[in-house]
Amino acid sequence: MLTLFHHPDCPHSRFVRLILREYDLPVRQVIERTWERREEFLILNPAGTTPVLVCQENIAVPDASIIAEYVDETYGKNFGDARLFPVDISGRIEVRRLLDWFNGKFFKEVSGPLTDERYKHYMMPSSDSGRRDHALIADACQSIEHHVAYIESLLSKQDWLAGVQLSYADLAAVAHLSVTDYFCKAAWNGYGRFNAWHERMRSRQAFQSVLTGGWRS
Amino acid sequence: MLTLFHHPDCPHSRFVRLILREYDLPVRQVIERTWERREEFLILNPAGTTPVLVCQENIAVPDASIIAEYVDETYGKNFGDARLFPVDISGRIEVRRLLDWFNGKFFKEVSGPLTDERYKHYMMPSSDSGRRDHALIADACQSIEHHVAYIESLLSKQDWLAGVQLSYADLAAVAHLSVTDYFCKAAWNGYGRFNAWHERMRSRQAFQSVLTGGWRS
Repeated sequence: MLTLFHHPDCPHSRFVRLILREYDLPVRQVIERTWERREEFLILNPAGTTPVLVCQENIAVPDASIIAEYVDETYGKNFGDARLFPVDISGRIEVRRLLDWFNGKFFKEVSGPLTDERYKHYMMPSSDSGRRDHALIADACQSIEHHVAYIESLLSKQDWLAGVQLSYADLAAVAHLSVTDYFCKAAWNGYGRFNAWHERMRSRQAFQSVLTGGWRS
Repeated sequence: MLTLFHHPDCPHSRFVRLILREYDLPVRQVIERTWERREEFLILNPAGTTPVLVCQENIAVPDASIIAEYVDETYGKNFGDARLFPVDISGRIEVRRLLDWFNGKFFKEVSGPLTDERYKHYMMPSSDSGRRDHALIADACQSIEHHVAYIESLLSKQDWLAGVQLSYADLAAVAHLSVTDYFCKAAWNGYGRFNAWHERMRSRQAFQSVLTGGWRS
Protein backbone atom coordinates (compact mmCIF):
# COMPACT_ATOMS: atom_id res chain seq x y z
CA MET A 1 0.00 0.00 0.00
CA LEU A 2 1.22 3.49 -0.84
CA THR A 3 1.15 6.25 1.78
CA LEU A 4 0.87 9.91 0.78
CA PHE A 5 1.84 12.72 3.12
CA HIS A 6 0.02 15.77 1.77
CA HIS A 7 -1.98 18.86 2.62
CA PRO A 8 -5.46 19.49 1.12
CA ASP A 9 -4.49 23.08 0.20
CA CYS A 10 -1.09 22.23 -1.31
CA PRO A 11 -1.31 22.35 -5.14
CA HIS A 12 1.60 19.93 -5.58
CA SER A 13 -0.22 17.46 -3.32
CA ARG A 14 -3.42 17.93 -5.33
CA PHE A 15 -1.53 17.14 -8.54
CA VAL A 16 -0.24 13.86 -7.06
CA ARG A 17 -3.68 12.96 -5.67
CA LEU A 18 -5.14 13.50 -9.16
CA ILE A 19 -2.54 11.14 -10.67
CA LEU A 20 -3.22 8.42 -8.07
CA ARG A 21 -6.98 8.82 -8.53
CA GLU A 22 -6.79 8.75 -12.36
CA TYR A 23 -4.81 5.50 -12.09
CA ASP A 24 -7.08 4.26 -9.28
CA LEU A 25 -4.08 3.32 -7.12
CA PRO A 26 -5.07 2.66 -3.49
CA VAL A 27 -3.31 5.00 -1.08
CA ARG A 28 -3.35 5.78 2.61
CA GLN A 29 -3.42 9.55 3.08
CA VAL A 30 -1.84 11.47 5.95
CA ILE A 31 -2.33 15.22 6.29
CA GLU A 32 0.98 16.93 7.00
CA ARG A 33 1.22 20.46 8.43
CA THR A 34 4.64 21.32 7.05
CA TRP A 35 4.89 24.50 9.13
CA GLU A 36 5.06 22.36 12.29
CA ARG A 37 8.34 20.86 10.96
CA ARG A 38 7.59 17.46 12.48
CA GLU A 39 10.83 15.56 13.05
CA GLU A 40 9.63 12.22 11.62
CA PHE A 41 8.49 14.02 8.46
CA LEU A 42 11.83 15.82 8.06
CA ILE A 43 13.53 12.41 8.09
CA LEU A 44 11.30 11.37 5.18
CA ASN A 45 11.97 14.64 3.32
CA PRO A 46 14.74 16.92 4.64
CA ALA A 47 13.38 19.73 2.44
CA GLY A 48 10.25 19.66 4.63
CA THR A 49 7.75 20.03 1.78
CA THR A 50 4.63 18.11 0.72
CA PRO A 51 3.86 15.83 -1.00
CA VAL A 52 5.88 12.76 -0.03
CA LEU A 53 4.85 9.32 -1.26
CA VAL A 54 6.11 6.35 0.73
CA CYS A 55 6.18 3.55 -1.78
CA GLN A 56 5.90 -0.20 -1.42
CA GLU A 57 9.66 -0.64 -1.21
CA ASN A 58 9.37 1.68 1.84
CA ILE A 59 11.28 4.43 0.06
CA ALA A 60 10.15 8.04 0.57
CA VAL A 61 9.63 9.81 -2.76
CA PRO A 62 9.48 13.60 -2.29
CA ASP A 63 8.34 16.36 -4.69
CA ALA A 64 5.39 16.20 -7.09
CA SER A 65 7.43 15.93 -10.30
CA ILE A 66 9.65 13.18 -8.83
CA ILE A 67 6.57 11.28 -7.65
CA ALA A 68 5.12 11.61 -11.17
CA GLU A 69 8.32 10.08 -12.62
CA TYR A 70 8.27 7.30 -10.00
CA VAL A 71 4.61 6.44 -10.63
CA ASP A 72 5.25 6.32 -14.38
CA GLU A 73 8.33 4.11 -14.05
CA THR A 74 6.57 1.75 -11.63
CA TYR A 75 2.97 1.61 -12.85
CA GLY A 76 2.80 3.56 -16.15
CA LYS A 77 3.19 0.66 -18.55
CA ASN A 78 0.10 -1.08 -17.07
CA PHE A 79 -2.15 1.67 -18.40
CA GLY A 80 -1.58 1.39 -22.16
CA ASP A 81 -3.34 4.19 -24.03
CA ALA A 82 -4.45 5.81 -20.77
CA ARG A 83 -0.82 6.31 -19.65
CA LEU A 84 -0.37 9.90 -18.45
CA PHE A 85 3.26 10.27 -19.55
CA PRO A 86 4.18 9.65 -23.20
CA VAL A 87 6.88 7.18 -24.22
CA ASP A 88 8.23 9.07 -27.26
CA ILE A 89 11.10 11.53 -26.73
CA SER A 90 9.38 14.71 -27.91
CA GLY A 91 6.24 13.90 -25.92
CA ARG A 92 8.28 13.32 -22.75
CA ILE A 93 10.14 16.61 -23.19
CA GLU A 94 6.90 18.51 -23.69
CA VAL A 95 5.18 16.98 -20.64
CA ARG A 96 8.26 17.61 -18.47
CA ARG A 97 8.48 21.18 -19.79
CA LEU A 98 4.86 21.86 -18.81
CA LEU A 99 5.30 20.15 -15.43
CA ASP A 100 8.16 22.56 -14.81
CA TRP A 101 5.93 25.42 -16.01
CA PHE A 102 3.11 24.66 -13.57
CA ASN A 103 5.02 23.08 -10.65
CA GLY A 104 7.76 25.72 -11.02
CA LYS A 105 6.81 28.97 -12.76
CA PHE A 106 3.07 29.03 -11.99
CA PHE A 107 3.78 27.99 -8.39
CA LYS A 108 6.39 30.75 -7.99
CA GLU A 109 4.18 33.46 -9.47
CA VAL A 110 0.66 32.42 -8.46
CA SER A 111 -0.17 29.27 -6.51
CA GLY A 112 2.85 29.42 -4.16
CA PRO A 113 2.17 32.88 -2.71
CA LEU A 114 -1.55 32.04 -2.40
CA THR A 115 -0.79 28.76 -0.63
CA ASP A 116 1.55 30.56 1.77
CA GLU A 117 -1.29 32.99 2.55
CA ARG A 118 -3.60 30.08 3.26
CA TYR A 119 -1.02 28.36 5.49
CA LYS A 120 -0.38 31.64 7.37
CA HIS A 121 -4.04 31.61 8.34
CA TYR A 122 -3.71 28.11 9.83
CA MET A 123 -0.44 28.95 11.58
CA MET A 124 -1.44 32.26 13.15
CA PRO A 125 -5.21 32.67 12.82
CA SER A 126 -5.67 35.42 15.38
CA SER A 127 -2.40 37.37 15.34
CA ASP A 128 -1.47 40.35 13.18
CA SER A 129 0.80 38.08 11.15
CA GLY A 130 -2.28 36.05 10.31
CA ARG A 131 -3.82 38.97 8.46
CA ARG A 132 -4.19 38.71 4.71
CA ASP A 133 -1.51 40.34 2.56
CA HIS A 134 -3.91 41.92 0.06
CA ALA A 135 -1.17 43.34 -2.20
CA LEU A 136 0.42 39.90 -2.53
CA ILE A 137 -2.96 38.30 -3.29
CA ALA A 138 -3.74 40.96 -5.91
CA ASP A 139 -0.33 40.45 -7.58
CA ALA A 140 -0.76 36.68 -7.71
CA CYS A 141 -4.31 36.94 -9.07
CA GLN A 142 -3.18 39.40 -11.73
CA SER A 143 -0.41 37.03 -12.83
CA ILE A 144 -2.93 34.27 -13.62
CA GLU A 145 -4.16 35.85 -16.84
CA HIS A 146 -0.76 35.47 -18.51
CA HIS A 147 -0.92 31.73 -17.74
CA VAL A 148 -4.53 31.42 -18.90
CA ALA A 149 -3.52 33.07 -22.19
CA TYR A 150 -0.63 30.61 -22.48
CA ILE A 151 -2.96 27.62 -21.91
CA GLU A 152 -5.33 29.10 -24.53
CA SER A 153 -2.44 29.26 -27.03
CA LEU A 154 -1.47 25.62 -26.34
CA LEU A 155 -5.10 24.56 -26.90
CA SER A 156 -5.26 26.31 -30.28
CA LYS A 157 -3.09 23.47 -31.63
CA GLN A 158 -4.45 20.45 -29.75
CA ASP A 159 -7.17 19.22 -27.39
CA TRP A 160 -4.92 18.70 -24.34
CA LEU A 161 -2.05 20.78 -23.05
CA ALA A 162 0.77 18.50 -24.18
CA GLY A 163 -0.80 16.84 -27.23
CA VAL A 164 -3.64 14.65 -28.41
CA GLN A 165 -4.40 13.06 -25.06
CA LEU A 166 -4.70 13.77 -21.35
CA SER A 167 -1.32 13.84 -19.61
CA TYR A 168 0.40 14.85 -16.37
CA ALA A 169 0.53 18.38 -17.82
CA ASP A 170 -3.27 18.81 -17.68
CA LEU A 171 -3.41 17.42 -14.13
CA ALA A 172 -0.64 19.74 -12.90
CA ALA A 173 -2.28 22.77 -14.52
CA VAL A 174 -5.71 22.12 -13.06
CA ALA A 175 -4.25 21.30 -9.62
CA HIS A 176 -2.42 24.64 -9.44
CA LEU A 177 -5.38 26.55 -10.87
CA SER A 178 -7.67 24.93 -8.27
CA VAL A 179 -5.96 26.61 -5.31
CA THR A 180 -6.56 30.06 -6.82
CA ASP A 181 -10.38 29.79 -6.64
CA TYR A 182 -10.46 30.80 -2.99
CA PHE A 183 -8.73 34.13 -3.61
CA CYS A 184 -9.24 35.09 -7.26
CA LYS A 185 -12.70 35.65 -8.67
CA ALA A 186 -11.67 36.15 -12.25
CA ALA A 187 -13.85 35.65 -15.30
CA TRP A 188 -11.97 34.38 -18.34
CA ASN A 189 -14.64 35.27 -20.86
CA GLY A 190 -12.21 35.88 -23.67
CA TYR A 191 -10.62 32.45 -23.41
CA GLY A 192 -13.06 29.98 -24.94
CA ARG A 193 -10.68 27.05 -25.39
CA PHE A 194 -9.33 27.48 -21.85
CA ASN A 195 -12.83 27.52 -20.39
CA ALA A 196 -13.91 24.42 -22.30
CA TRP A 197 -10.74 22.55 -21.23
CA HIS A 198 -11.07 23.76 -17.63
CA GLU A 199 -14.66 22.59 -17.46
CA ARG A 200 -13.69 19.22 -18.96
CA MET A 201 -10.94 18.83 -16.34
CA ARG A 202 -13.12 19.90 -13.42
CA SER A 203 -15.88 17.47 -14.37
CA ARG A 204 -13.56 14.47 -14.25
CA GLN A 205 -14.30 12.09 -11.39
CA ALA A 206 -10.69 12.39 -10.15
CA PHE A 207 -11.01 16.15 -9.74
CA GLN A 208 -14.31 15.86 -7.91
CA SER A 209 -12.86 13.24 -5.55
CA VAL A 210 -9.77 15.25 -4.70
CA LEU A 211 -11.68 18.44 -4.00
CA THR A 212 -14.59 16.93 -2.13
CA GLY A 213 -12.62 14.41 -0.10
CA GLY A 214 -14.41 11.44 -1.59
CA TRP A 215 -11.21 9.46 -1.58
CA ARG A 216 -10.77 5.74 -1.19
CA SER A 217 -8.06 4.93 1.34
CA MET B 1 25.39 18.13 -33.28
CA LEU B 2 23.83 19.42 -30.06
CA THR B 3 23.45 23.17 -29.49
CA LEU B 4 23.36 24.62 -25.98
CA PHE B 5 21.94 28.06 -25.26
CA HIS B 6 23.47 29.06 -21.93
CA HIS B 7 25.06 31.83 -19.92
CA PRO B 8 28.51 31.43 -18.32
CA ASP B 9 27.21 32.78 -14.98
CA CYS B 10 24.01 30.67 -14.90
CA PRO B 11 24.43 27.76 -12.44
CA HIS B 12 21.85 25.62 -14.24
CA SER B 13 23.82 26.11 -17.47
CA ARG B 14 27.05 25.17 -15.69
CA PHE B 15 25.43 21.95 -14.45
CA VAL B 16 24.45 20.98 -18.01
CA ARG B 17 27.89 21.93 -19.37
CA LEU B 18 29.46 19.67 -16.72
CA ILE B 19 27.25 16.76 -17.80
CA LEU B 20 28.09 17.23 -21.49
CA ARG B 21 31.80 17.54 -20.70
CA GLU B 22 31.82 14.46 -18.41
CA TYR B 23 30.22 12.48 -21.24
CA ASP B 24 32.45 14.19 -23.82
CA LEU B 25 29.45 14.98 -26.04
CA PRO B 26 30.32 17.55 -28.74
CA VAL B 27 28.15 20.66 -28.48
CA ARG B 28 27.91 24.05 -30.13
CA GLN B 29 27.52 26.69 -27.43
CA VAL B 30 25.59 29.94 -27.78
CA ILE B 31 25.63 32.54 -25.01
CA GLU B 32 22.10 33.77 -24.29
CA ARG B 33 21.40 37.00 -22.40
CA THR B 34 17.97 36.05 -21.07
CA TRP B 35 17.24 39.59 -19.85
CA GLU B 36 17.13 40.76 -23.49
CA ARG B 37 14.14 38.45 -24.03
CA ARG B 38 15.17 37.65 -27.61
CA GLU B 39 12.16 36.58 -29.64
CA GLU B 40 13.81 33.57 -31.32
CA PHE B 41 14.90 32.30 -27.90
CA LEU B 42 11.40 32.69 -26.42
CA ILE B 43 10.10 30.47 -29.23
CA LEU B 44 12.60 27.77 -28.12
CA ASN B 45 11.66 28.23 -24.45
CA PRO B 46 8.58 30.34 -23.62
CA ALA B 47 9.74 30.46 -19.97
CA GLY B 48 12.73 32.50 -21.21
CA THR B 49 15.32 30.76 -19.02
CA THR B 50 18.69 29.13 -19.71
CA PRO B 51 19.82 26.48 -20.39
CA VAL B 52 18.11 25.15 -23.52
CA LEU B 53 19.59 22.20 -25.41
CA VAL B 54 18.56 21.84 -29.04
CA CYS B 55 18.97 18.15 -29.73
CA GLN B 56 19.64 16.19 -32.87
CA GLU B 57 15.94 15.68 -33.57
CA ASN B 58 15.80 19.52 -33.58
CA ILE B 59 13.70 19.56 -30.43
CA ALA B 60 14.37 22.27 -27.85
CA VAL B 61 14.88 20.78 -24.38
CA PRO B 62 14.57 23.47 -21.67
CA ASP B 63 15.52 23.39 -17.97
CA ALA B 64 18.60 21.74 -16.45
CA SER B 65 16.78 18.81 -14.82
CA ILE B 66 14.81 18.04 -18.00
CA ILE B 67 18.02 18.18 -20.06
CA ALA B 68 19.61 15.77 -17.55
CA GLU B 69 16.70 13.34 -18.03
CA TYR B 70 16.92 13.72 -21.83
CA VAL B 71 20.69 13.11 -21.93
CA ASP B 72 20.27 10.02 -19.74
CA GLU B 73 17.44 8.59 -21.85
CA THR B 74 19.33 9.26 -25.09
CA TYR B 75 22.99 8.61 -24.26
CA GLY B 76 23.11 7.23 -20.69
CA LYS B 77 23.19 3.54 -21.51
CA ASN B 78 26.37 3.99 -23.60
CA PHE B 79 28.37 4.88 -20.52
CA GLY B 80 28.05 1.68 -18.46
CA ASP B 81 29.56 2.10 -15.01
CA ALA B 82 30.30 5.78 -15.67
CA ARG B 83 26.59 6.55 -16.16
CA LEU B 84 25.67 9.63 -14.11
CA PHE B 85 22.08 8.56 -13.34
CA PRO B 86 21.43 5.21 -11.63
CA VAL B 87 19.11 2.60 -13.12
CA ASP B 88 17.72 1.22 -9.84
CA ILE B 89 14.57 2.79 -8.38
CA SER B 90 15.97 3.99 -5.06
CA GLY B 91 19.07 5.43 -6.75
CA ARG B 92 16.93 7.32 -9.27
CA ILE B 93 14.73 8.76 -6.51
CA GLU B 94 17.78 9.90 -4.53
CA VAL B 95 19.47 11.56 -7.51
CA ARG B 96 16.23 13.31 -8.51
CA ARG B 97 15.68 14.41 -4.91
CA LEU B 98 19.14 15.98 -4.77
CA LEU B 99 18.70 17.57 -8.22
CA ASP B 100 15.56 19.18 -6.87
CA TRP B 101 17.51 20.22 -3.76
CA PHE B 102 20.26 22.01 -5.69
CA ASN B 103 18.39 23.15 -8.82
CA GLY B 104 15.39 24.14 -6.68
CA LYS B 105 16.05 24.85 -3.01
CA PHE B 106 19.71 25.92 -3.21
CA PHE B 107 18.92 28.05 -6.29
CA LYS B 108 16.01 29.73 -4.51
CA GLU B 109 17.97 30.47 -1.33
CA VAL B 110 21.51 31.04 -2.58
CA SER B 111 22.60 30.76 -6.21
CA GLY B 112 19.46 32.34 -7.72
CA PRO B 113 19.65 35.66 -5.84
CA LEU B 114 23.42 35.83 -6.49
CA THR B 115 22.93 35.14 -10.20
CA ASP B 116 20.27 37.87 -10.39
CA GLU B 117 22.76 40.27 -8.79
CA ARG B 118 25.36 39.33 -11.39
CA TYR B 119 22.86 39.75 -14.25
CA LYS B 120 21.75 43.13 -12.87
CA HIS B 121 25.32 44.32 -13.29
CA TYR B 122 25.31 43.31 -16.98
CA MET B 123 21.88 44.81 -17.56
CA MET B 124 22.42 48.19 -15.89
CA PRO B 125 26.14 48.59 -15.17
CA SER B 126 26.14 52.32 -14.54
CA SER B 127 22.68 53.09 -13.17
CA ASP B 128 21.50 53.11 -9.58
CA SER B 129 19.63 49.89 -10.23
CA GLY B 130 22.98 48.31 -11.11
CA ARG B 131 24.27 48.81 -7.59
CA ARG B 132 24.86 45.76 -5.45
CA ASP B 133 22.15 44.74 -3.00
CA HIS B 134 24.49 44.02 -0.09
CA ALA B 135 21.74 42.79 2.24
CA LEU B 136 20.58 40.24 -0.33
CA ILE B 137 24.14 39.08 -0.94
CA ALA B 138 24.77 38.72 2.82
CA ASP B 139 21.55 36.70 3.24
CA ALA B 140 22.41 34.36 0.37
CA CYS B 141 25.98 33.86 1.62
CA GLN B 142 24.73 33.13 5.11
CA SER B 143 22.31 30.50 3.77
CA ILE B 144 25.15 28.50 2.23
CA GLU B 145 26.38 27.06 5.53
CA HIS B 146 23.15 25.13 6.07
CA HIS B 147 23.68 23.49 2.66
CA VAL B 148 27.36 22.79 3.32
CA ALA B 149 26.36 21.08 6.59
CA TYR B 150 23.79 19.04 4.67
CA ILE B 151 26.40 17.94 2.11
CA GLU B 152 28.73 17.04 5.01
CA SER B 153 25.98 14.84 6.51
CA LEU B 154 25.40 13.07 3.17
CA LEU B 155 29.15 12.40 2.88
CA SER B 156 29.29 10.80 6.34
CA LYS B 157 27.54 7.79 4.80
CA GLN B 158 29.14 7.59 1.36
CA ASP B 159 31.85 9.01 -0.92
CA TRP B 160 29.51 10.84 -3.31
CA LEU B 161 26.34 12.78 -2.63
CA ALA B 162 23.86 10.18 -3.89
CA GLY B 163 25.79 6.98 -3.23
CA VAL B 164 28.92 5.05 -4.07
CA GLN B 165 29.67 6.79 -7.34
CA LEU B 166 29.68 10.17 -9.05
CA SER B 167 26.22 11.21 -10.25
CA TYR B 168 24.23 14.18 -11.55
CA ALA B 169 23.77 15.16 -7.87
CA ASP B 170 27.48 15.97 -7.42
CA LEU B 171 27.59 17.94 -10.68
CA ALA B 172 24.50 19.99 -9.77
CA ALA B 173 25.86 20.75 -6.30
CA VAL B 174 29.28 21.89 -7.52
CA ALA B 175 27.72 23.93 -10.35
CA HIS B 176 25.52 25.89 -7.94
CA LEU B 177 28.32 26.27 -5.38
CA SER B 178 30.63 27.59 -8.13
CA VAL B 179 28.57 30.75 -8.72
CA THR B 180 28.85 31.72 -5.06
CA ASP B 181 32.67 32.14 -5.16
CA TYR B 182 32.43 35.62 -6.62
CA PHE B 183 30.37 36.96 -3.70
CA CYS B 184 30.98 34.73 -0.69
CA LYS B 185 34.42 34.35 0.82
CA ALA B 186 33.53 31.70 3.36
CA ALA B 187 35.92 29.25 4.96
CA TRP B 188 34.38 25.86 5.73
CA ASN B 189 37.06 24.75 8.14
CA GLY B 190 34.74 22.63 10.22
CA TYR B 191 33.53 20.56 7.25
CA GLY B 192 36.32 18.14 6.40
CA ARG B 193 34.32 15.75 4.22
CA PHE B 194 32.73 18.63 2.32
CA ASN B 195 36.12 20.20 1.64
CA ALA B 196 37.65 16.93 0.43
CA TRP B 197 34.66 16.27 -1.87
CA HIS B 198 34.64 19.89 -3.12
CA GLU B 199 38.35 19.73 -3.93
CA ARG B 200 37.84 16.39 -5.73
CA MET B 201 35.02 17.90 -7.79
CA ARG B 202 36.89 21.09 -8.62
CA SER B 203 39.96 19.19 -9.80
CA ARG B 204 37.99 17.20 -12.37
CA GLN B 205 38.82 18.09 -15.97
CA ALA B 206 35.15 18.85 -16.68
CA PHE B 207 35.01 21.47 -13.96
CA GLN B 208 38.23 23.11 -15.12
CA SER B 209 36.95 23.23 -18.72
CA VAL B 210 33.61 24.76 -17.83
CA LEU B 211 35.10 27.47 -15.64
CA THR B 212 38.06 28.35 -17.85
CA GLY B 213 36.25 28.17 -21.17
CA GLY B 214 38.45 25.36 -22.49
CA TRP B 215 35.49 23.80 -24.23
CA ARG B 216 35.47 21.80 -27.43
CA SER B 217 32.78 23.01 -29.79
